[in-house]
Amino acid sequence: MKAELMTEIADIEMEGHLIDSQMLTRVLDKIMDMGGEFEIKTFRIGEKKNDTSYVQITVTGEDSAHLDRILRELNALGARLLEMEDAKTEIAPGDMVVPRGFYSTTNHPTYVRYHGAWVEVVSNHMDCLIVLHDGKAVCTPIGHIKKGDRVVIGTTGVKVVPPERPREKSFFGFMSNEVSSERPSGELVRQLACEIIRTKNGGGKIAVVCGPALVHTGAAPSLAKLIREGYVDVLLAGNAVAVHDIERQLFGTSLGMNCSGNAISGGHRNHLYAISEIMASGSIKKAIEEGKLKGGIMYEAITRGIDFILAGSIRDDGPLPEVITDTVKAKDAMGRVLQGVDMTIMLGTMLHSIAVGNLLPSYVKTICVDINPSTVTKLMDRGSAQAIGLVTDIGIFLPQLAEEIQKQKKEIIRAA
Amino acid sequence: MKAELMTEIADIEMEGHLIDSQMLTRVLDKIMDMGGEFEIKTFRIGEKKNDTSYVQITVTGEDSAHLDRILRELNALGARLLEMEDAKTEIAPGDMVVPRGFYSTTNHPTYVRYHGAWVEVVSNHMDCLIVLHDGKAVCTPIGHIKKGDRVVIGTTGVKVVPPERPREKSFFGFMSNEVSSERPSGELVRQLACEIIRTKNGGGKIAVVCGPALVHTGAAPSLAKLIREGYVDVLLAGNAVAVHDIERQLFGTSLGMNCSGNAISGGHRNHLYAISEIMASGSIKKAIEEGKLKGGIMYEAITRGIDFILAGSIRDDGPLPEVITDTVKAKDAMGRVLQGVDMTIMLGTMLHSIAVGNLLPSYVKTICVDINPSTVTKLMDRGSAQAIGLVTDIGIFLPQLAEEIQKQKKEIIRAA
Amino acid sequence: MKAELMTEIADIEMEGHLIDSQMLTRVLDKIMDMGGEFEIKTFRIGEKKNDTSYVQITVTGEDSAHLDRILRELNALGARLLEMEDAKTEIAPGDMVVPRGFYSTTNHPTYVRYHGAWVEVVSNHMDCLIVLHDGKAVCTPIGHIKKGDRVVIGTTGVKVVPPERPREKSFFGFMSNEVSSERPSGELVRQLACEIIRTKNGGGKIAVVCGPALVHTGAAPSLAKLIREGYVDVLLAGNAVAVHDIERQLFGTSLGMNCSGNAISGGHRNHLYAISEIMASGSIKKAIEEGKLKGGIMYEAITRGIDFILAGSIRDDGPLPEVITDTVKAKDAMGRVLQGVDMTIMLGTMLHSIAVGNLLPSYVKTICVDINPSTVTKLMDRGSAQAIGLVTDIGIFLPQLAEEIQKQKKEIIRAA
Amino acid sequence: MKAELMTEIADIEMEGHLIDSQMLTRVLDKIMDMGGEFEIKTFRIGEKKNDTSYVQITVTGEDSAHLDRILRELNALGARLLEMEDAKTEIAPGDMVVPRGFYSTTNHPTYVRYHGAWVEVVSNHMDCLIVLHDGKAVCTPIGHIKKGDRVVIGTTGVKVVPPERPREKSFFGFMSNEVSSERPSGELVRQLACEIIRTKNGGGKIAVVCGPALVHTGAAPSLAKLIREGYVDVLLAGNAVAVHDIERQLFGTSLGMNCSGNAISGGHRNHLYAISEIMASGSIKKAIEEGKLKGGIMYEAITRGIDFILAGSIRDDGPLPEVITDTVKAKDAMGRVLQGVDMTIMLGTMLHSIAVGNLLPSYVKTICVDINPSTVTKLMDRGSAQAIGLVTDIGIFLPQLAEEIQKQKKEIIRAA
Repeated sequence: MKAELMTEIADIEMEGHLIDSQMLTRVLDKIMDMGGEFEIKTFRIGEKKNDTSYVQITVTGEDSAHLDRILRELNALGARLLEMEDAKTEIAPGDMVVPRGFYSTTNHPTYVRYHGAWVEVVSNHMDCLIVLHDGKAVCTPIGHIKKGDRVVIGTTGVKVVPPERPREKSFFGFMSNEVSSERPSGELVRQLACEIIRTKNGGGKIAVVCGPALVHTGAAPSLAKLIREGYVDVLLAGNAVAVHDIERQLFGTSLGMNCSGNAISGGHRNHLYAISEIMASGSIKKAIEEGKLKGGIMYEAITRGIDFILAGSIRDDGPLPEVITDTVKAKDAMGRVLQGVDMTIMLGTMLHSIAVGNLLPSYVKTICVDINPSTVTKLMDRGSAQAIGLVTDIGIFLPQLAEEIQKQKKEIIRAA
Repeated sequence: MKAELMTEIADIEMEGHLIDSQMLTRVLDKIMDMGGEFEIKTFRIGEKKNDTSYVQITVTGEDSAHLDRILRELNALGARLLEMEDAKTEIAPGDMVVPRGFYSTTNHPTYVRYHGAWVEVVSNHMDCLIVLHDGKAVCTPIGHIKKGDRVVIGTTGVKVVPPERPREKSFFGFMSNEVSSERPSGELVRQLACEIIRTKNGGGKIAVVCGPALVHTGAAPSLAKLIREGYVDVLLAGNAVAVHDIERQLFGTSLGMNCSGNAISGGHRNHLYAISEIMASGSIKKAIEEGKLKGGIMYEAITRGIDFILAGSIRDDGPLPEVITDTVKAKDAMGRVLQGVDMTIMLGTMLHSIAVGNLLPSYVKTICVDINPSTVTKLMDRGSAQAIGLVTDIGIFLPQLAEEIQKQKKEIIRAA
Repeated sequence: MKAELMTEIADIEMEGHLIDSQMLTRVLDKIMDMGGEFEIKTFRIGEKKNDTSYVQITVTGEDSAHLDRILRELNALGARLLEMEDAKTEIAPGDMVVPRGFYSTTNHPTYVRYHGAWVEVVSNHMDCLIVLHDGKAVCTPIGHIKKGDRVVIGTTGVKVVPPERPREKSFFGFMSNEVSSERPSGELVRQLACEIIRTKNGGGKIAVVCGPALVHTGAAPSLAKLIREGYVDVLLAGNAVAVHDIERQLFGTSLGMNCSGNAISGGHRNHLYAISEIMASGSIKKAIEEGKLKGGIMYEAITRGIDFILAGSIRDDGPLPEVITDTVKAKDAMGRVLQGVDMTIMLGTMLHSIAVGNLLPSYVKTICVDINPSTVTKLMDRGSAQAIGLVTDIGIFLPQLAEEIQKQKKEIIRAA
Repeated sequence: MKAELMTEIADIEMEGHLIDSQMLTRVLDKIMDMGGEFEIKTFRIGEKKNDTSYVQITVTGEDSAHLDRILRELNALGARLLEMEDAKTEIAPGDMVVPRGFYSTTNHPTYVRYHGAWVEVVSNHMDCLIVLHDGKAVCTPIGHIKKGDRVVIGTTGVKVVPPERPREKSFFGFMSNEVSSERPSGELVRQLACEIIRTKNGGGKIAVVCGPALVHTGAAPSLAKLIREGYVDVLLAGNAVAVHDIERQLFGTSLGMNCSGNAISGGHRNHLYAISEIMASGSIKKAIEEGKLKGGIMYEAITRGIDFILAGSIRDDGPLPEVITDTVKAKDAMGRVLQGVDMTIMLGTMLHSIAVGNLLPSYVKTICVDINPSTVTKLMDRGSAQAIGLVTDIGIFLPQLAEEIQKQKKEIIRAA
């Protein structure tokens, strides 16, 4: 009975390591979950490890709207319509007003068919729209949609390439995002050190995202060292990290807690003094030029000239002059400096980790280190499925990581 | 070069919903992870939703030992050798001493080829051995292996049937074991209530596993009610749950905390008085017969005659006479009463949840409710992959579940 | 030997419920922790429950700087110098630049001696400076310090009144800020409901601070109801709460998750559609006027005309027009609407809870409800020592709270 | 009106550092919390840091039962009745049956007045009874009460000595049991290393309590080293720790996870092989004698001859011959080896930590290291208020601690 009503069908195709990357599994699961039917028309399985597979599937939906909903989901999983057509567009009727049926981006590399050719979407990241302009397809957050923008709608002519399982096992494995705290921590330090060195040796770009716990737990000197030695290309943090770091440099305390972790007398005043000292100079940069600030995370970041963004929050004291207090501008600036990043290390911050995760493509190696497993869980719940979670104590972890990097580096030099 | 060294090969086969249940994905992943090679010889894909697939794969290992390690892993994932041979056995050389190469069980239904026929393994659960005796294949923990037992070795003649993805979406979904706390809790209560009623209406057996937090958070009356109304067939807990429950009945406190959550005067003494009162009667059962104990979890469990096991732990005061203080005996007893259970609800206990998870086949619907996400994570880390995690507060959750069950029950009666 | 070097002494005095409010304990502890010496000169103990005590103590420091550090700490604990002198001030040398030795505020009520009289500090909250102007003493965050401001320095002429232990036990007890999840949740719901009704009946003002988990877990309708019925006077949240709430109203989903907690097809698009719909109207307010938005948290807040602040964050999509994207302005706005609040209920948000905690005087009853115990721990670590922590699931907790309030309200009406 | 009904009064006295150790605060708070009244009769305050204080208080209860309840609580806080009388006793009417009004012990040093003299209670720990026999007062768990035992009832003639605040700040501070994860971890490692060396240099006895996470996270070699070098006098664990440790020694894996944290092929079989190998030898001890087991935690513990208890649990495989499977016997054995212990280090186990906490006097320095803050919270909730919590990753923490101890030791030797 029900079957008779099902009249809308569409043919999709997909290729790649369909089996072991779970691409086919997910496509079939999604169809079933959404109440559709499927028939596999063609299937060529990759016979050996490095062969890719190819599949054609006829998908049946209850009606055109149902089929459309299914196709949108399958598109995000890497399937595309068999017929090649150009992407369809509509004009945004107002600033931040989107046309019905707009295409919502994933965080995977995406291509749009435009005048018969596949054009890669620029700066693609999750939950945005695609705007076509001058032969370019640009990933655009809703906040930047302007009246008159030509926005891609539907899934016709849009191709998504989900990450495939690497042929060999690696630290940043495939879908191996464990949140368990019961892993051999020392060994994970060694592997991560190795990945960092490999990334830098290969000319890669590494971003570090961190929260104030980094300073409280005593890991600030290790991060400063990693920056000084060139392992960090982009630093993303908030006002608190900068103030705590400067406070430590100027007064030896972090939020009035000295290096033995005891709240010390007049503690919070040092926090305010740190801000005041920077204000008296005019900025962190000027305080460094004046010789007032002589070390620490911000000193190394500015001295070395790496990109850094300090984003404002409603918990800030001050804030410091370098802080971008407008959250829209801060988010945009973060997106800009994250361009071309190959690896992101998130250290003890839920807010900034999720914000950065939203801005990253899925192929960026992402590791989230936090003593609170829910930071990692939430990061992945919000779509950064590529993230690896390390539930550990950054206060001990980061110093050991810095030491291990140095050790491995020496061995490499010795071996060469 | 390397390929030349690879001389050992074997042909395996597998059938079922290979794609959407991820069975094929896992087999290929495992071969690659372990450094083996594969070639897919035959592949018949199930074209429609209810069709099964079939695959034959030639697996290549570096040498015989390597191939053997790979085959063991593939066996646990549902693949079996193409040639049909009887299972191989060896004799256990001593009590609790196992023969080299013994077959270690999974928690999936398992069959052993014995005199040319497939025999289902009795009481199968994870991390045990299979002993053949009198034409029966019995899942046997290492602690019960006796000198002279005929133990299955290797994977020849052993077939494992991993769970398949249900064709429709259900509460106890497939691999949907979320640990996130950000799910609509009220809706989850409704769904679980529905599953409980359905299980009982279908003649199913439900086990409840609980820790003392159940009593501390005020959920004991709700569990007592569920037992009284017949929704619980098996109760697994420790001495603490029983004493706290009895203390509440006799003195209105749980570990000296009254119903407003305040530690009350002389609190812990009530805990000891509760033990003392039961000892004066001789047992919980006798205290009920004497009319001393008139309500609560233990009262309902004993009055209704359901199976219950109170397992001892090193934190116990007393303990009560019904407590099995020997942990080996307690575990055996738990295994016995869990036979035939269809659904297990774990409430606020890590120790008992993991212990019960070890004893359950993978097809038993398992839900683990705890405010601490690490309880669920650890349960799944230890192999109970079928468990669904609900990160919530049992003190509010269970009362609402009991209420919802009653409500749904009434609606069913009204509708009938 | 050492004693000879100790030449700097000062006499302090303190009165109140010194013993049971731990005021004297803390003063003596602090002196010892900081390496000072003390001699109690006068001590009049309150003999009965309602009598206050009085103490005079001679404090000895190693030198004048050491003594000064000790006196600052003792001042924050409620002790003041015996000699009555006017507060000392210095002029701020630049915008956001503070004079040496500035007085850093606590979150307790504070008085400044000015022309011989004690003047209460206006809008006092933690980690700010006191600016004297036109006979008024105004608590001023460092970010608002202007060149030329007359800033209080040192502790001379500054009196702090720490909270005293209530003479009877109450829900918002004294220093009873438990973070344990093992409390009878149902009873806590009843007590909190009672406190809310009592506060509102006494003409008090209640602020609710919430994060997006409120909507995800299904508690939004309960908060909307509490606002509609007049139990909420101030609402503090971010863009996400508003968008999720509006998305639920317009599309029945929250971040693409429907009421059964399943990610639904095209889910995140609804999130963007929700923003788009509001943008098309121009603002949330206009969308309500147009009849587009007919219910939910934001609808009730705007319809009822309560104060609300939506503060921007770097995780925002959009954001909505009502969101204050500049974090400095948002924080100021939050401070303004929190004036005169008697009770604050924090629901599932670490960022906003700590931000609000920073802005609240210590006498505001504060309850922080979160499934993650670290939210509460951090809130208290950062100085909001008056906060009570409830580790529970807001998705079940808030609906039950709303129901309980209604029930108690009915009983009160019936009794009247 | 109400006052007239209050007729029952008693005079109590207390001495010590009443103010700064919060003893007086707690006594007055408790009276008020319980609805009693008080009048301070005599109060001599310790004028200088090392002087003790003395107080006499008249306590008024509503009736004799109310007063009695108050006095019991005050007794546990260190107050005693002014009149000196011998402790009162009653005879236990049956095995594990307690006389009404029995005295329930605290974990503080306790003295019983017996024939006019104060006798210290032997092996005193929390939640037990005091049995008088042959001039000795013995702390006796309810499980060991025998018919005919002479049990102390009421608080007459019972004196408790709560811990006092140390005159100087120390690592094991007074009531400083923080659970926050935001402390400088490296510094805490240094301080703890220092305390361990100081304890051992002073001839003290150190117990280590650990769970299987110790082995999983890769910290086992560090514990083995600490045992070998004589820093551990007592080891308390379960079957799992021993099997995992032996498995690592024999097969290089822990529960089938190799040193890179990946589940390896046939992993759990190694766990069972480890048990089998020990069973083939007869015991761990014999396996060492045979040269089968050559390193690791158990090897060092047995070789060095320290006291160790392996307590059984319902999660055990095997268990190993050295495991005490009866929980009552295991708990007794734990109590015996903990006699005279000065410091206890709890590593990654909730069950064993709480069990050990129950058996320890309050003056034993106790540090609980766990990545899960709820382990520490629960430990303290259950009365081990002296415990310090360190929320960190034992996989990195313990290796660093072992290294730091060695470093400090060398410095001491060099300095000498």
